[in-house]
Amino acid sequence: MSSSRPLIGIITVSDRASSGEYEDLSGPAIADALREFLATECEYETVIVPDEVDQIVAAVKGFTARGAGLICTTGGTGPSPRDVTPEAMELVIEKELRGFGELMRKASLDIGVPTAILSRQTAGIVGKSLIVNMPGKPASIRVCLEAIFPAIPYCIELAEGPYLEGNPDVVQVFRPKKK
Amino acid sequence: MSSSRPLIGIITVSDRASSGEYEDLSGPAIADALREFLATECEYETVIVPDEVDQIVAAVKGFTARGAGLICTTGGTGPSPRDVTPEAMELVIEKELRGFGELMRKASLDIGVPTAILSRQTAGIVGKSLIVNMPGKPASIRVCLEAIFPAIPYCIELAEGPYLEGNPDVVQVFRPKKK
Amino acid sequence: MSSSRPLIGIITVSDRASSGEYEDLSGPAIADALREFLATECEYETVIVPDEVDQIVAAVKGFTARGAGLICTTGGTGPSPRDVTPEAMELVIEKELRGFGELMRKASLDIGVPTAILSRQTAGIVGKSLIVNMPGKPASIRVCLEAIFPAIPYCIELAEGPYLEGNPDVVQVFRPKKK
Repeated sequence: MSSSRPLIGIITVSDRASSGEYEDLSGPAIADALREFLATECEYETVIVPDEVDQIVAAVKGFTARGAGLICTTGGTGPSPRDVTPEAMELVIEKELRGFGELMRKASLDIGVPTAILSRQTAGIVGKSLIVNMPGKPASIRVCLEAIFPAIPYCIELAEGPYLEGNPDVVQVFRPKKK
Repeated sequence: MSSSRPLIGIITVSDRASSGEYEDLSGPAIADALREFLATECEYETVIVPDEVDQIVAAVKGFTARGAGLICTTGGTGPSPRDVTPEAMELVIEKELRGFGELMRKASLDIGVPTAILSRQTAGIVGKSLIVNMPGKPASIRVCLEAIFPAIPYCIELAEGPYLEGNPDVVQVFRPKKK
Repeated sequence: MSSSRPLIGIITVSDRASSGEYEDLSGPAIADALREFLATECEYETVIVPDEVDQIVAAVKGFTARGAGLICTTGGTGPSPRDVTPEAMELVIEKELRGFGELMRKASLDIGVPTAILSRQTAGIVGKSLIVNMPGKPASIRVCLEAIFPAIPYCIELAEGPYLEGNPDVVQVFRPKKK
Protein backbone atom coordinates (compact mmCIF):
# COMPACT_ATOMS: atom_id res chain seq x y z
CA MET A 1 0.00 0.00 0.00
CA SER A 2 1.26 3.45 -0.88
CA SER A 3 1.28 5.42 2.34
CA SER A 4 0.30 8.60 0.52
CA ARG A 5 -3.02 7.39 -0.82
CA PRO A 6 -6.17 7.28 1.33
CA LEU A 7 -7.28 3.74 2.11
CA ILE A 8 -10.78 2.55 1.21
CA GLY A 9 -11.83 -0.76 2.72
CA ILE A 10 -14.42 -3.03 1.13
CA ILE A 11 -15.87 -5.95 3.05
CA THR A 12 -17.79 -8.57 1.09
CA VAL A 13 -20.01 -10.44 3.53
CA SER A 14 -21.07 -13.76 2.02
CA ASP A 15 -20.83 -17.37 3.14
CA ARG A 16 -20.62 -18.53 -0.46
CA ALA A 17 -18.06 -15.99 -1.66
CA SER A 18 -16.00 -16.64 1.45
CA SER A 19 -15.91 -20.41 0.85
CA GLY A 20 -14.95 -19.91 -2.77
CA GLU A 21 -18.17 -21.50 -4.01
CA TYR A 22 -19.07 -18.25 -5.67
CA GLU A 23 -17.03 -15.45 -7.23
CA ASP A 24 -17.22 -12.09 -5.42
CA LEU A 25 -18.70 -9.64 -7.93
CA SER A 26 -20.00 -7.12 -5.39
CA GLY A 27 -16.68 -6.03 -3.88
CA PRO A 28 -15.16 -5.26 -7.30
CA ALA A 29 -18.38 -3.47 -8.34
CA ILE A 30 -18.02 -1.11 -5.36
CA ALA A 31 -14.33 -0.47 -6.09
CA ASP A 32 -15.08 0.20 -9.77
CA ALA A 33 -17.84 2.69 -8.95
CA LEU A 34 -15.76 4.50 -6.33
CA ARG A 35 -12.75 4.77 -8.69
CA GLU A 36 -15.05 6.47 -11.14
CA PHE A 37 -16.71 8.79 -8.60
CA LEU A 38 -13.51 9.89 -6.82
CA ALA A 39 -10.93 12.23 -8.33
CA THR A 40 -8.59 11.47 -5.43
CA GLU A 41 -6.51 8.36 -6.12
CA CYS A 42 -7.13 5.89 -3.34
CA GLU A 43 -5.89 2.48 -2.31
CA TYR A 44 -8.71 -0.08 -2.48
CA GLU A 45 -8.55 -3.24 -0.47
CA THR A 46 -11.24 -5.93 -0.34
CA VAL A 47 -11.66 -8.67 2.23
CA ILE A 48 -14.22 -11.46 2.01
CA VAL A 49 -15.77 -12.79 5.21
CA PRO A 50 -18.59 -15.25 5.93
CA ASP A 51 -21.91 -14.11 7.43
CA GLU A 52 -20.56 -14.15 10.97
CA VAL A 53 -20.81 -11.15 13.30
CA ASP A 54 -17.36 -11.54 14.85
CA GLN A 55 -15.60 -11.80 11.48
CA ILE A 56 -17.43 -8.73 10.13
CA VAL A 57 -16.50 -6.80 13.27
CA ALA A 58 -12.84 -7.88 12.98
CA ALA A 59 -12.70 -6.80 9.33
CA VAL A 60 -14.13 -3.36 10.22
CA LYS A 61 -11.64 -2.92 13.05
CA GLY A 62 -8.78 -3.97 10.79
CA PHE A 63 -9.64 -1.18 8.36
CA THR A 64 -10.25 1.50 11.01
CA ALA A 65 -6.92 0.64 12.68
CA ARG A 66 -5.21 1.35 9.38
CA GLY A 67 -6.95 4.72 8.97
CA ALA A 68 -9.44 3.88 6.21
CA GLY A 69 -11.55 6.97 5.52
CA LEU A 70 -14.35 4.96 4.00
CA ILE A 71 -15.38 1.37 4.62
CA CYS A 72 -18.12 -0.23 2.49
CA THR A 73 -19.71 -3.55 3.29
CA THR A 74 -21.76 -5.50 0.77
CA GLY A 75 -24.25 -8.22 1.61
CA GLY A 76 -25.94 -9.60 4.69
CA THR A 77 -28.48 -6.82 5.31
CA GLY A 78 -31.70 -8.71 4.53
CA PRO A 79 -34.17 -10.51 6.82
CA SER A 80 -32.78 -14.06 6.35
CA PRO A 81 -31.44 -15.95 9.36
CA ARG A 82 -27.87 -15.77 7.96
CA ASP A 83 -28.05 -11.99 7.33
CA VAL A 84 -26.13 -10.50 10.26
CA THR A 85 -24.32 -7.44 8.89
CA PRO A 86 -26.62 -5.05 10.85
CA GLU A 87 -25.92 -7.01 14.05
CA ALA A 88 -22.20 -6.38 13.47
CA MET A 89 -22.87 -2.68 12.75
CA GLU A 90 -24.57 -2.33 16.14
CA LEU A 91 -21.32 -3.43 17.77
CA VAL A 92 -19.01 -1.06 15.89
CA ILE A 93 -20.91 2.09 14.89
CA GLU A 94 -20.41 4.98 17.30
CA LYS A 95 -22.64 7.54 15.60
CA GLU A 96 -25.34 6.03 13.40
CA LEU A 97 -26.38 8.00 10.31
CA ARG A 98 -29.88 6.72 9.57
CA GLY A 99 -30.31 9.02 6.60
CA PHE A 100 -28.05 6.80 4.47
CA GLY A 101 -30.29 3.76 4.89
CA GLU A 102 -33.43 5.83 4.37
CA LEU A 103 -32.07 7.30 1.13
CA MET A 104 -30.74 4.00 -0.24
CA ARG A 105 -34.10 2.30 0.38
CA LYS A 106 -35.88 5.24 -1.28
CA ALA A 107 -33.53 5.14 -4.29
CA SER A 108 -34.28 1.44 -4.80
CA LEU A 109 -38.03 1.95 -4.33
CA ASP A 110 -37.92 4.78 -6.88
CA ILE A 111 -36.54 2.44 -9.57
CA GLY A 112 -39.32 -0.08 -8.93
CA VAL A 113 -37.87 -2.48 -6.37
CA PRO A 114 -40.60 -2.85 -3.70
CA THR A 115 -38.45 -5.25 -1.69
CA ALA A 116 -36.06 -2.38 -0.93
CA ILE A 117 -37.93 -2.10 2.37
CA LEU A 118 -36.48 -5.48 3.38
CA SER A 119 -32.99 -3.97 3.47
CA ARG A 120 -31.52 -3.19 6.87
CA GLN A 121 -28.67 -1.13 5.40
CA THR A 122 -27.33 1.66 7.58
CA ALA A 123 -24.18 3.79 7.94
CA GLY A 124 -22.24 5.50 10.66
CA ILE A 125 -18.99 6.69 12.13
CA VAL A 126 -16.42 4.31 13.59
CA GLY A 127 -13.46 6.29 14.91
CA LYS A 128 -12.49 8.54 11.98
CA SER A 129 -14.01 6.24 9.37
CA LEU A 130 -17.38 6.34 7.67
CA ILE A 131 -18.84 2.87 7.24
CA VAL A 132 -21.68 2.31 4.77
CA ASN A 133 -23.63 -0.90 4.10
CA MET A 134 -24.17 -1.37 0.39
CA PRO A 135 -26.57 -3.93 -1.12
CA GLY A 136 -25.30 -7.36 -2.07
CA LYS A 137 -26.40 -7.24 -5.70
CA PRO A 138 -24.05 -5.49 -8.13
CA ALA A 139 -27.01 -3.97 -10.01
CA SER A 140 -28.26 -2.29 -6.84
CA ILE A 141 -24.85 -1.05 -5.73
CA ARG A 142 -24.59 1.68 -8.35
CA VAL A 143 -28.14 2.94 -7.68
CA CYS A 144 -27.43 3.28 -3.96
CA LEU A 145 -23.97 4.77 -4.36
CA GLU A 146 -25.22 7.43 -6.77
CA ALA A 147 -27.82 8.47 -4.21
CA ILE A 148 -25.51 8.80 -1.22
CA PHE A 149 -22.11 9.62 -2.75
CA PRO A 150 -22.52 13.44 -2.88
CA ALA A 151 -22.56 13.50 0.95
CA ILE A 152 -19.67 11.08 1.55
CA PRO A 153 -16.52 13.24 1.17
CA TYR A 154 -17.89 15.98 3.48
CA CYS A 155 -18.97 13.34 6.01
CA ILE A 156 -15.47 11.86 6.13
CA GLU A 157 -14.05 15.38 6.54
CA LEU A 158 -16.37 16.03 9.51
CA ALA A 159 -15.27 12.72 11.02
CA GLU A 160 -11.66 13.96 10.68
CA GLY A 161 -10.76 11.35 8.08
CA PRO A 162 -8.88 12.00 4.80
CA TYR A 163 -9.90 14.73 2.34
CA LEU A 164 -11.43 13.23 -0.80
CA GLU A 165 -12.32 15.01 -4.05
CA GLY A 166 -15.19 13.85 -6.23
CA ASN A 167 -14.88 13.58 -10.00
CA PRO A 168 -17.05 16.49 -11.18
CA ASP A 169 -17.57 14.88 -14.59
CA VAL A 170 -19.42 12.01 -12.91
CA VAL A 171 -20.96 13.21 -9.64
CA GLN A 172 -21.42 16.50 -7.80
CA VAL A 173 -19.89 16.29 -4.34
CA PHE A 174 -21.52 18.68 -1.89
CA ARG A 175 -19.76 20.66 0.84
CA PRO A 176 -22.03 23.19 2.60
CA LYS A 177 -20.78 26.72 3.09
CA LYS A 178 -19.72 27.44 6.65
CA LYS A 179 -22.43 29.21 8.62
CA MET B 1 -57.91 -24.35 12.13
CA SER B 2 -57.12 -26.29 8.97
CA SER B 3 -53.56 -27.50 9.35
CA SER B 4 -52.92 -27.07 5.62
CA ARG B 5 -53.55 -23.33 5.48
CA PRO B 6 -50.90 -20.80 6.51
CA LEU B 7 -51.85 -18.96 9.68
CA ILE B 8 -52.06 -15.16 9.76
CA GLY B 9 -52.30 -13.60 13.19
CA ILE B 10 -53.94 -10.22 13.81
CA ILE B 11 -53.54 -8.45 17.14
CA THR B 12 -55.86 -5.55 17.88
CA VAL B 13 -54.23 -3.45 20.58
CA SER B 14 -56.83 -1.26 22.26
CA ASP B 15 -57.98 -0.74 25.83
CA ARG B 16 -61.48 0.11 24.65
CA ALA B 17 -61.88 -2.74 22.16
CA SER B 18 -60.45 -5.13 24.74
CA SER B 19 -62.95 -4.08 27.41
CA GLY B 20 -65.83 -4.38 24.97
CA GLU B 21 -66.61 -0.65 25.20
CA TYR B 22 -65.89 -0.36 21.54
CA GLU B 23 -66.25 -2.72 18.57
CA ASP B 24 -63.00 -3.82 16.92
CA LEU B 25 -63.17 -2.56 13.34
CA SER B 26 -59.43 -2.54 12.69
CA GLY B 27 -58.72 -6.26 13.03
CA PRO B 28 -61.47 -7.21 10.55
CA ALA B 29 -60.29 -4.44 8.18
CA ILE B 30 -56.82 -6.02 8.07
CA ALA B 31 -58.22 -9.53 7.51
CA ASP B 32 -60.50 -8.25 4.73
CA ALA B 33 -57.65 -6.49 2.94
CA LEU B 34 -55.30 -9.48 3.25
CA ARG B 35 -57.96 -11.89 1.95
CA GLU B 36 -58.24 -9.68 -1.10
CA PHE B 37 -54.47 -9.27 -1.63
CA LEU B 38 -53.52 -12.94 -1.13
CA ALA B 39 -54.29 -15.69 -3.65
CA THR B 40 -53.18 -18.28 -1.07
CA GLU B 41 -56.03 -19.25 1.22
CA CYS B 42 -54.99 -18.57 4.78
CA GLU B 43 -56.39 -19.04 8.24
CA TYR B 44 -57.01 -15.65 9.89
CA GLU B 45 -57.19 -15.37 13.63
CA THR B 46 -57.66 -12.13 15.59
CA VAL B 47 -56.98 -11.52 19.26
CA ILE B 48 -57.83 -8.32 21.10
CA VAL B 49 -55.53 -7.16 23.89
CA PRO B 50 -55.38 -3.99 26.00
CA ASP B 51 -52.53 -1.48 25.63
CA GLU B 52 -50.22 -3.46 27.90
CA VAL B 53 -46.72 -4.50 26.85
CA ASP B 54 -46.82 -7.95 28.41
CA GLN B 55 -50.16 -8.85 26.82
CA ILE B 56 -48.99 -7.69 23.38
CA VAL B 57 -45.79 -9.72 23.77
CA ALA B 58 -47.78 -12.81 24.85
CA ALA B 59 -50.09 -12.49 21.84
CA VAL B 60 -47.11 -12.26 19.46
CA LYS B 61 -45.44 -15.28 21.04
CA GLY B 62 -48.69 -17.23 20.83
CA PHE B 63 -48.83 -16.68 17.08
CA THR B 64 -45.13 -17.37 16.43
CA ALA B 65 -45.35 -20.61 18.44
CA ARG B 66 -48.12 -21.74 16.10
CA GLY B 67 -46.08 -20.92 12.99
CA ALA B 68 -47.88 -17.81 11.77
CA GLY B 69 -46.07 -16.50 8.69
CA LEU B 70 -47.44 -13.00 9.11
CA ILE B 71 -48.56 -11.20 12.25
CA CYS B 72 -50.18 -7.78 11.99
CA THR B 73 -50.83 -5.54 14.96
CA THR B 74 -53.18 -2.57 14.82
CA GLY B 75 -53.18 0.34 17.25
CA GLY B 76 -50.97 1.67 20.00
CA THR B 77 -48.19 3.19 17.89
CA GLY B 78 -48.76 6.89 18.61
CA PRO B 79 -47.14 9.23 21.15
CA SER B 80 -49.84 8.97 23.85
CA PRO B 81 -48.94 7.59 27.29
CA ARG B 82 -51.08 4.46 26.68
CA ASP B 83 -49.49 3.77 23.26
CA VAL B 84 -47.04 0.96 23.98
CA THR B 85 -47.07 -1.29 20.92
CA PRO B 86 -43.51 -0.19 19.92
CA GLU B 87 -42.28 -0.95 23.43
CA ALA B 88 -43.60 -4.52 22.98
CA MET B 89 -41.96 -4.71 19.53
CA GLU B 90 -38.57 -3.90 21.08
CA LEU B 91 -38.94 -7.00 23.24
CA VAL B 92 -39.88 -9.43 20.47
CA ILE B 93 -38.37 -8.29 17.16
CA GLU B 94 -35.09 -10.02 16.33
CA LYS B 95 -34.34 -8.26 13.03
CA GLU B 96 -35.98 -4.87 12.69
CA LEU B 97 -37.00 -3.80 9.18
CA ARG B 98 -37.14 -0.01 9.41
CA GLY B 99 -38.10 0.39 5.77
CA PHE B 100 -41.67 -0.71 6.52
CA GLY B 101 -42.25 2.14 8.98
CA GLU B 102 -40.55 4.64 6.70
CA LEU B 103 -42.72 3.64 3.74
CA MET B 104 -45.99 3.54 5.73
CA ARG B 105 -45.34 7.04 7.11
CA LYS B 106 -44.49 8.25 3.61
CA ALA B 107 -47.65 6.68 2.14
CA SER B 108 -49.78 8.49 4.73
CA LEU B 109 -47.94 11.79 4.22
CA ASP B 110 -48.46 11.45 0.47
CA ILE B 111 -52.25 11.31 0.87
CA GLY B 112 -52.22 14.48 2.98
CA VAL B 113 -51.96 13.25 6.57
CA PRO B 114 -49.18 15.37 8.16
CA THR B 115 -49.60 13.58 11.49
CA ALA B 116 -48.24 10.41 9.88
CA ILE B 117 -44.90 11.41 11.42
CA LEU B 118 -46.39 10.75 14.86
CA SER B 119 -46.63 7.05 14.05
CA ARG B 120 -44.04 4.76 15.58
CA GLN B 121 -44.99 1.81 13.35
CA THR B 122 -42.24 -0.65 12.55
CA ALA B 123 -41.83 -4.24 11.38
CA GLY B 124 -39.40 -7.09 11.79
CA ILE B 125 -38.67 -10.76 12.03
CA VAL B 126 -39.64 -12.85 15.07
CA GLY B 127 -38.50 -16.44 14.56
CA LYS B 128 -39.87 -17.37 11.14
CA SER B 129 -42.69 -14.79 11.29
CA LEU B 130 -42.87 -11.28 9.86
CA ILE B 131 -44.59 -8.87 12.24
CA VAL B 132 -45.90 -5.55 10.95
CA ASN B 133 -47.51 -2.73 12.92
CA MET B 134 -50.49 -1.35 11.05
CA PRO B 135 -52.27 1.92 11.97
CA GLY B 136 -55.24 1.85 14.31
CA LYS B 137 -57.67 3.58 11.95
CA PRO B 138 -59.37 1.39 9.35
CA ALA B 139 -59.09 4.16 6.74
CA SER B 140 -55.30 4.24 7.12
CA ILE B 141 -54.88 0.46 7.12
CA ARG B 142 -55.55 0.02 3.42
CA VAL B 143 -53.20 2.88 2.44
CA CYS B 144 -50.35 1.36 4.44
CA LEU B 145 -50.97 -2.20 3.36
CA GLU B 146 -51.04 -1.26 -0.33
CA ALA B 147 -47.64 0.38 0.09
CA ILE B 148 -45.87 -2.49 1.82
CA PHE B 149 -47.72 -5.59 0.60
CA PRO B 150 -45.65 -6.20 -2.57
CA ALA B 151 -42.62 -6.97 -0.36
CA ILE B 152 -44.37 -9.15 2.21
CA PRO B 153 -44.52 -12.63 0.58
CA TYR B 154 -40.81 -12.54 -0.37
CA CYS B 155 -39.89 -11.33 3.11
CA ILE B 156 -41.73 -14.25 4.73
CA GLU B 157 -39.98 -16.62 2.29
CA LEU B 158 -36.56 -15.21 3.30
CA ALA B 159 -37.51 -15.67 6.95
CA GLU B 160 -38.28 -19.32 6.12
CA GLY B 161 -41.99 -18.95 6.77
CA PRO B 162 -44.80 -20.22 4.51
CA TYR B 163 -44.93 -19.51 0.77
CA LEU B 164 -47.69 -17.01 -0.04
CA GLU B 165 -48.98 -16.00 -3.47
CA GLY B 166 -50.42 -12.56 -4.12
CA ASN B 167 -53.59 -12.00 -6.09
CA PRO B 168 -52.25 -10.50 -9.35
CA ASP B 169 -55.62 -8.87 -10.12
CA VAL B 170 -55.23 -6.69 -7.02
CA VAL B 171 -51.55 -6.23 -6.22
CA GLN B 172 -48.20 -7.07 -7.82
CA VAL B 173 -46.11 -9.13 -5.45
CA PHE B 174 -42.38 -8.76 -6.07
CA ARG B 175 -39.74 -11.49 -5.86
CA PRO B 176 -36.30 -10.41 -7.11
CA LYS B 177 -34.41 -12.65 -9.51
CA LYS B 178 -31.58 -14.54 -7.87
CA LYS B 179 -28.23 -12.85 -8.41
CA MET C 1 -42.83 34.17 33.09
CA SER C 2 -46.56 34.59 32.80
CA SER C 3 -48.07 31.48 34.32
CA SER C 4 -50.93 31.54 31.82
CA ARG C 5 -48.85 31.19 28.68
CA PRO C 6 -47.52 27.80 27.52
CA LEU C 7 -43.74 27.55 27.83
CA ILE C 8 -41.59 26.71 24.80
CA GLY C 9 -37.98 25.82 25.57
CA ILE C 10 -35.18 26.33 23.07
CA ILE C 11 -31.76 24.79 23.65
CA THR C 12 -28.88 26.05 21.54
CA VAL C 13 -26.17 23.39 21.62
CA SER C 14 -22.84 24.92 20.58
CA ASP C 15 -19.41 25.13 22.15
CA ARG C 16 -18.75 28.44 20.41
CA ALA C 17 -22.09 30.09 21.19
CA SER C 18 -21.82 28.88 24.77
CA SER C 19 -18.36 30.40 25.26
CA GLY C 20 -19.51 33.70 23.77
CA GLU C 21 -17.10 33.38 20.84
CA TYR C 22 -20.02 33.36 18.50
CA GLU C 23 -23.49 34.95 18.59
CA ASP C 24 -26.40 32.50 18.84
CA LEU C 25 -28.47 33.06 15.71
CA SER C 26 -30.18 29.66 15.67
CA GLY C 27 -32.11 29.92 18.93
CA PRO C 28 -33.68 33.26 17.95
CA ALA C 29 -34.43 31.90 14.45
CA ILE C 30 -36.48 29.08 16.01
CA ALA C 31 -38.34 31.46 18.33
CA ASP C 32 -39.10 33.83 15.44
CA ALA C 33 -40.46 31.04 13.26
CA LEU C 34 -42.58 29.56 16.07
CA ARG C 35 -44.04 32.98 16.98
CA GLU C 36 -45.15 33.28 13.38
CA PHE C 37 -46.55 29.73 13.12
CA LEU C 38 -48.43 29.71 16.44
CA ALA C 39 -51.62 31.68 17.08
CA THR C 40 -51.35 30.81 20.80
CA GLU C 41 -49.17 33.31 22.64
CA CYS C 42 -46.36 31.42 24.29
CA GLU C 43 -43.45 32.15 26.58
CA TYR C 44 -40.16 31.49 24.78
CA GLU C 45 -37.02 30.81 26.75
CA THR C 46 -33.61 29.99 25.26
CA VAL C 47 -30.64 28.43 27.00
CA ILE C 48 -27.22 27.99 25.44
CA VAL C 49 -25.15 24.96 26.40
CA PRO C 50 -21.84 23.53 25.13
CA ASP C 51 -21.71 20.25 23.17
CA GLU C 52 -21.75 18.14 26.33
CA VAL C 53 -24.25 15.34 26.89
CA ASP C 54 -24.83 16.04 30.57
CA GLN C 55 -25.50 19.75 30.02
CA ILE C 56 -27.93 19.04 27.18
CA VAL C 57 -29.74 16.50 29.36
CA ALA C 58 -29.92 18.97 32.26
CA ALA C 59 -31.34 21.67 30.00
CA VAL C 60 -34.04 19.29 28.71
CA LYS C 61 -34.96 18.21 32.24
CA GLY C 62 -35.12 21.84 33.35
CA PHE C 63 -37.71 22.58 30.69
CA THR C 64 -39.77 19.42 31.22
CA ALA C 65 -39.86 20.09 34.98
CA ARG C 66 -41.42 23.47 34.22
CA GLY C 67 -44.06 21.96 31.94
CA ALA C 68 -42.77 23.07 28.55
CA GLY C 69 -45.07 21.65 25.87
CA LEU C 70 -42.42 21.92 23.18
CA ILE C 71 -38.65 21.85 23.46
CA CYS C 72 -36.49 22.51 20.41
CA THR C 73 -32.77 21.90 20.30
CA THR C 74 -30.53 23.36 17.61
CA GLY C 75 -27.08 22.07 16.73
CA GLY C 76 -24.93 19.08 17.50
CA THR C 77 -26.67 16.48 15.32
CA GLY C 78 -23.92 15.90 12.72
CA PRO C 79 -21.21 13.21 12.50
CA SER C 80 -18.38 15.29 14.04
CA PRO C 81 -16.72 14.11 17.24
CA ARG C 82 -18.17 17.08 19.16
CA ASP C 83 -21.74 16.47 17.88
CA VAL C 84 -23.45 14.76 20.81
CA THR C 85 -27.05 16.00 20.79
CA PRO C 86 -28.38 12.56 19.68
CA GLU C 87 -26.43 10.90 22.50
CA ALA C 88 -28.28 13.20 24.94
CA MET C 89 -31.60 12.41 23.24
CA GLU C 90 -31.04 8.68 23.83
CA LEU C 91 -30.89 9.43 27.56
CA VAL C 92 -34.06 11.53 27.77
CA ILE C 93 -36.52 10.47 25.05
CA GLU C 94 -39.16 8.01 26.27
CA LYS C 95 -41.03 7.52 23.00
CA GLU C 96 -38.96 8.22 19.91
CA LEU C 97 -40.79 9.61 16.88
CA ARG C 98 -38.53 8.68 13.98
CA GLY C 99 -40.86 10.21 11.41
CA PHE C 100 -39.71 13.72 12.37
CA GLY C 101 -36.08 13.00 11.49
CA GLU C 102 -37.08 11.18 8.31
CA LEU C 103 -39.22 14.10 7.15
CA MET C 104 -36.67 16.81 8.06
CA ARG C 105 -33.93 14.97 6.15
CA LYS C 106 -36.30 14.55 3.19
CA ALA C 107 -37.26 18.25 3.28
CA SER C 108 -33.59 19.25 3.13
CA LEU C 109 -32.81 16.72 0.38
CA ASP C 110 -35.76 18.07 -1.61
CA ILE C 111 -34.29 21.59 -1.66
CA GLY C 112 -30.96 20.28 -2.93
CA VAL C 113 -28.90 19.65 0.19
CA PRO C 114 -27.42 16.14 -0.29
CA THR C 115 -25.63 16.33 3.07
CA ALA C 116 -29.04 16.24 4.80
CA ILE C 117 -28.37 12.51 5.23
CA LEU C 118 -25.55 13.39 7.65
CA SER C 119 -28.08 14.78 10.11
CA ARG C 120 -28.94 12.63 13.11
CA GLN C 121 -31.95 14.77 14.06
CA THR C 122 -34.80 13.00 15.83
CA ALA C 123 -37.76 13.83 18.06
CA GLY C 124 -39.74 12.22 20.82
CA ILE C 125 -41.75 12.46 23.99
CA VAL C 126 -40.18 13.32 27.35
CA GLY C 127 -42.87 13.30 30.05
CA LYS C 128 -45.60 15.55 28.61
CA SER C 129 -43.20 17.47 26.36
CA LEU C 130 -42.39 16.99 22.69
CA ILE C 131 -38.69 17.48 22.00
CA VAL C 132 -37.50 18.09 18.44
CA ASN C 133 -33.91 18.45 17.18
CA MET C 134 -33.69 21.28 14.68
CA PRO C 135 -30.66 21.88 12.43
CA GLY C 136 -27.91 24.23 13.55
CA LYS C 137 -28.03 26.51 10.52
CA PRO C 138 -30.70 29.23 10.57
CA ALA C 139 -31.37 28.75 6.84
CA SER C 140 -32.22 25.09 7.38
CA ILE C 141 -34.36 25.70 10.45
CA ARG C 142 -37.29 27.21 8.55
CA VAL C 143 -37.27 24.43 5.93
CA CYS C 144 -37.44 21.75 8.60
CA LEU C 145 -40.00 23.52 10.76
CA GLU C 146 -42.35 24.08 7.82
CA ALA C 147 -42.23 20.35 7.10
CA ILE C 148 -42.98 19.11 10.60
CA PHE C 149 -45.01 21.93 12.18
CA PRO C 150 -48.47 20.78 11.00
CA ALA C 151 -48.14 17.69 13.22
CA ILE C 152 -46.72 19.41 16.32
CA PRO C 153 -49.82 20.80 18.12
CA TYR C 154 -51.72 17.49 17.86
CA CYS C 155 -48.65 15.60 19.05
CA ILE C 156 -48.35 17.78 22.15
CA GLU C 157 -52.07 17.26 22.79
CA LEU C 158 -51.64 13.46 22.60
CA ALA C 159 -48.73 13.73 25.02
CA GLU C 160 -51.08 15.60 27.39
CA GLY C 161 -49.18 18.87 27.09
CA PRO C 162 -50.72 22.32 26.50
CA TYR C 163 -53.23 23.02 23.70
CA LEU C 164 -51.63 25.11 20.96
CA GLU C 165 -53.34 26.75 17.99
CA GLY C 166 -51.55 27.29 14.70
CA ASN C 167 -51.78 30.53 12.77
CA PRO C 168 -53.93 29.54 9.77
CA ASP C 169 -52.57 32.44 7.67
CA VAL C 170 -49.12 30.85 7.79
CA VAL C 171 -49.44 27.11 8.29
CA GLN C 172 -52.21 24.50 8.35
CA VAL C 173 -52.15 22.60 11.62
CA PHE C 174 -53.63 19.12 11.32
CA ARG C 175 -55.78 17.33 13.89
CA PRO C 176 -57.27 14.05 12.65
CA LYS C 177 -60.95 13.35 13.22
CA LYS C 178 -61.60 10.84 15.95
CA LYS C 179 -62.22 7.38 14.58
